[in-house]
Amino acid sequence: MNDDVARVLGGDQRVISRIMTSLERRFPAVTSVIKELDHHTGNAYTIGLTGPPGVGKSTLVDRLTGHLRALGLTVGIIAVDPDSPFSGGSILGDRIRMQRHYLDSGVFIRSVSTRGQGGGLPRTVKCLVRVLDAAGKDVIIVETVGVGQTELGVMGVADTIVVALMPESGDTIQTLKAGVLEIANLFLVNKADREGADRMAAALRSMLQIAAEPQDWEPPVVLTRADRGEGIEALWEEIESHRNYLSTSAGAGDYRSLLEERRGERRRAEFLETLQEELFQRLKARIEREQTLQSIVEDIGNGKLEPYSAASELLADPAALGSSFLSNE
Amino acid sequence: MNDDVARVLGGDQRVISRIMTSLERRFPAVTSVIKELDHHTGNAYTIGLTGPPGVGKSTLVDRLTGHLRALGLTVGIIAVDPDSPFSGGSILGDRIRMQRHYLDSGVFIRSVSTRGQGGGLPRTVKCLVRVLDAAGKDVIIVETVGVGQTELGVMGVADTIVVALMPESGDTIQTLKAGVLEIANLFLVNKADREGADRMAAALRSMLQIAAEPQDWEPPVVLTRADRGEGIEALWEEIESHRNYLSTSAGAGDYRSLLEERRGERRRAEFLETLQEELFQRLKARIEREQTLQSIVEDIGNGKLEPYSAASELLADPAALGSSFLSNE
Repeated sequence: MNDDVARVLGGDQRVISRIMTSLERRFPAVTSVIKELDHHTGNAYTIGLTGPPGVGKSTLVDRLTGHLRALGLTVGIIAVDPDSPFSGGSILGDRIRMQRHYLDSGVFIRSVSTRGQGGGLPRTVKCLVRVLDAAGKDVIIVETVGVGQTELGVMGVADTIVVALMPESGDTIQTLKAGVLEIANLFLVNKADREGADRMAAALRSMLQIAAEPQDWEPPVVLTRADRGEGIEALWEEIESHRNYLSTSAGAGDYRSLLEERRGERRRAEFLETLQEELFQRLKARIEREQTLQSIVEDIGNGKLEPYSAASELLADPAALGSSFLSNE
Repeated sequence: MNDDVARVLGGDQRVISRIMTSLERRFPAVTSVIKELDHHTGNAYTIGLTGPPGVGKSTLVDRLTGHLRALGLTVGIIAVDPDSPFSGGSILGDRIRMQRHYLDSGVFIRSVSTRGQGGGLPRTVKCLVRVLDAAGKDVIIVETVGVGQTELGVMGVADTIVVALMPESGDTIQTLKAGVLEIANLFLVNKADREGADRMAAALRSMLQIAAEPQDWEPPVVLTRADRGEGIEALWEEIESHRNYLSTSAGAGDYRSLLEERRGERRRAEFLETLQEELFQRLKARIEREQTLQSIVEDIGNGKLEPYSAASELLADPAALGSSFLSNE
């Protein structure tokens, strides 16, 4: 295992891939590796990129990666793919466009499917980012297709969150799920050559003024044309200024900066999420094993018991669940 | 309390409202009421309506309600509102359009905000539906704005799920979150007078043929123009044929029909969700109380401990959590 840690720290792409697969499949043995690797993290800067399908996120990631490589920075990319029969084709196409970077040892690309991850996806992505951070990547880009609750969770891994839109997204601004606009540190209007790009940017700016609480950081709006690489430099500059803002603002309590404070908050949240998920897995396993619990579930299914009150009654009698901590609330 | 049950069964709108507020706020006292009411449920038919913002869902609900009332059926409506500063205005407008039904004692309308509900929203909605079912409503319509993970969860309450789109949603088909198309029992293309409506319907039909596993029930595509009430009768006919399909198909095991089987599955899922949520609330409360757990959380925040492995280690030592059932996995 320590051998694996050393190899990840040395940037061995094959071992990194294997560790990542273990993480996705929740192999218990990987826990000690992650624990070791964590001591070597904190140097990478993580960017989250989200927005509706079709705005050109993959092209943006491709171009931004090219720009970062030209600056001498190494890059890790985690692309979260929704698992729908309807989107398979276009996603594959996106990935093919990224292929030139597959040959570059300074770039590591990993696709993560939402399949089978359920609510655990954000946690998996956080662990993957930790691996790439330990492996010495300077910048890690996490890209999600879609703007739902799961994507919001995944964005929780990022230091800077970029929400990408395009001129045709005019109606889409309201389509964006509640919460997406609120978490953005930076907006991007791609395909800026199309009609309505300036109008879109202006609409975004005025929406931000209406909706946002006054804050020290006002999310800028960057216009790009990713297919030609236009605006990518400006995008990186704005990301750098957000990073600078986070690094130079004071953190609460013992935290040296706002960046450290927010990273600390995210780590604490990750701990709670992991506990929650594991507890539920164990609860389900226990129900499957215990005959009395099984018959409660059956009676709920056939209408003899009501689900909500049955759950409350079970929790009020923790001996039935075999759990002592339940009685302490 | 039994008085409250009797009043709900009698359709007392004021008591129904009060019980619903208690449910949203998770007052423990309401548990016994829900338990009693459950014995009087199973008669209502529940329709879920979802789709991207702007397709006219509120107008559809309004028109469908009018149609059902004309048929002599009573209607319960639960409208789930996202809680975003960007959507407040338009939602309010939607609600105003529904106002004519507020004066009709055969219609009960309830708005539920996503605010503060977190992952518990689907469970709250299920309890609200149970109350309306017990109160004797013939048809219950649950409308959600948006197409994210939470909305998918809310749709889990419905016997028939209708996904509404419009001609301009052409690009939106891929915008729909993975899973939404898969759960639809019926598609609806509203604003069917606009250009591209037939093309949209044809595209949906061919997508369904490519993507769907062969099933006994093939989701029909209904064209509507809700602002004029056109297609509403056809919509209801298709809902009725889905209901008929569910009622006449054989159920697994002891279930009399597929409808009963699916309702049983949903009740069992609701039980597990309630347990999961309650357990997590108790876990959080315990962490806040216990000094040793608090210091683990702090060390995770300041980087001394890694979140994922710390959670695993804590779960491996259930005495630390004060829980005996944790050790049984």
